[in-house]
Amino acid sequence: MKPTLLALPGNEALASRLTLDLRISLGEIETHRFPDGEAYVRIVSPVSGRPVLIAAPLHHPDKVILPLVLLAKTARELGATSVGLVALYLPYLRQDRRFRSGEALSARHFASLLSDTVDWIVTVNPHLHRFHDLQEIYRIPTEVVSAAPRLARWIREQVVAPLLVGPDEESRQWIAPIAAESGCPAVTLRKRRLGDLRVEIELPQLSQYRGRTPVLVDDIVSTGRTMIETVGALARAGFKRCSCVAVHGIFAQDAYARILAAGIHQIATCNTVPHPSNAIDIHDLVAEAAGRQLSGTGAHLAVGSW
Amino acid sequence: MKPTLLALPGNEALASRLTLDLRISLGEIETHRFPDGEAYVRIVSPVSGRPVLIAAPLHHPDKVILPLVLLAKTARELGATSVGLVALYLPYLRQDRRFRSGEALSARHFASLLSDTVDWIVTVNPHLHRFHDLQEIYRIPTEVVSAAPRLARWIREQVVAPLLVGPDEESRQWIAPIAAESGCPAVTLRKRRLGDLRVEIELPQLSQYRGRTPVLVDDIVSTGRTMIETVGALARAGFKRCSCVAVHGIFAQDAYARILAAGIHQIATCNTVPHPSNAIDIHDLVAEAAGRQLSGTGAHLAVGSW
Repeated sequence: MKPTLLALPGNEALASRLTLDLRISLGEIETHRFPDGEAYVRIVSPVSGRPVLIAAPLHHPDKVILPLVLLAKTARELGATSVGLVALYLPYLRQDRRFRSGEALSARHFASLLSDTVDWIVTVNPHLHRFHDLQEIYRIPTEVVSAAPRLARWIREQVVAPLLVGPDEESRQWIAPIAAESGCPAVTLRKRRLGDLRVEIELPQLSQYRGRTPVLVDDIVSTGRTMIETVGALARAGFKRCSCVAVHGIFAQDAYARILAAGIHQIATCNTVPHPSNAIDIHDLVAEAAGRQLSGTGAHLAVGSW
Repeated sequence: MKPTLLALPGNEALASRLTLDLRISLGEIETHRFPDGEAYVRIVSPVSGRPVLIAAPLHHPDKVILPLVLLAKTARELGATSVGLVALYLPYLRQDRRFRSGEALSARHFASLLSDTVDWIVTVNPHLHRFHDLQEIYRIPTEVVSAAPRLARWIREQVVAPLLVGPDEESRQWIAPIAAESGCPAVTLRKRRLGDLRVEIELPQLSQYRGRTPVLVDDIVSTGRTMIETVGALARAGFKRCSCVAVHGIFAQDAYARILAAGIHQIATCNTVPHPSNAIDIHDLVAEAAGRQLSGTGAHLAVGSW
């Protein structure tokens, strides 16, 4: 039988794209909160004998995890033959080792919980540092969509004489293919994180790039501190106009306003986390990956394909 | 080795009682939220080779579930010999069957998640309707502390000529022992729930109780609708002064203000959910139960012991 898509609230645009591209139906669900805050979930459409695909916005993970668990477990109880998850942003990847003794390895525990909940996951550029592959922490198949070609296209189309700027050494691995695709030079900076909200940036020698427009490229913008510090350092080095491009625009608290106030000329994110800065559509790539998983032909793609 | 207590924020009074009564130490933990809302958990004190007891306030379950999972799993990774949970209020017991097709059996799924997380649970009067015993949904030992003797004592000490009033037929089972202990008459009403926020109350013949003070007894006060409707119905029947006593004062949204405005003379809850109405201490009973579980002598006590 044809798969059914169940979309938790906050994923309406993705749900439209998935149903159109995969020619599957959007199942009806009801969700609300009881007055005391407990989640209520109901699957109205029949799912018995069908593969189910859940679209869940996980950028507020603590709010969504129980509704997601309830939805997935209920789909299975009602006879779904499999339950896949499309989560454009995969959270809880920051704590991937014990930086201090006794810290929770949240990345591993969250992955374990999701692995107990669904049969496969499609996501976009997970924030992997010490782990190199989601399969190190997930016990279920995961397919990673790379937004790099779309970031490269946006830069080509929107920025004259770009200079790609990666905020830290870790970004080198995934800035390289964007530089190759967009055909422009790239530098990576050194970042020292001094706390949740404080970072320090060191610039390399940039005089040979005078006249170019720096384009800051990052996977996630959360507090925006990295971007703001980098823009400040670049301005002091004579680069007055900067663009920024990122996969996931989390924009914690007032980050977006502070980034705009810092004098960034242009900022673009992918539509993985709904936000006014979403200028880069990757839903079609996600639909392709979900289609591969649903048809059982989904190869496991390592994140190295950035 | 001696057990260590790890207390998530919001359980400070209970933590003091547990450490004093059980002569165990309070382990140091650090918890905070990253700017994007993800939870951070760290166990600072050594737990290797020790039984760990976690105190977690679960009346905001979606906020606490991930920190609880992270804390329990980390304690185990760090070598704790067992991980028990004291949760004075056990949430997600409302959806214990499919009232409409396709509804999530949240009670069962939440129980399953906690059963995967800890080794045993001590709680106070769980809100069981269709299930009669937590063991129907929990795969781990659970011990239920009954607040009934303490409610009975409060009524004896605080109310002259009380008439116990149970809001619905379900309350009869646990109002009976309170009536027996406090030595006063009891009636149960009929409640029809018309929605999350609307209930309708039918009173029996009450003329033989004229002159008595009705004491509404319930296990949970959430929206307060039941109490307010009952007080209104009793006032129309000539009973102008009512007291209320409940185990768990959840008081969703502005429920407490509305209850006070409804002309309730006195309202008392147990200290299971921190609230200004907490007038009935049951922490010592909880400490006794936790002690039994820690020493491995904890009998499984059915909720029928109300």
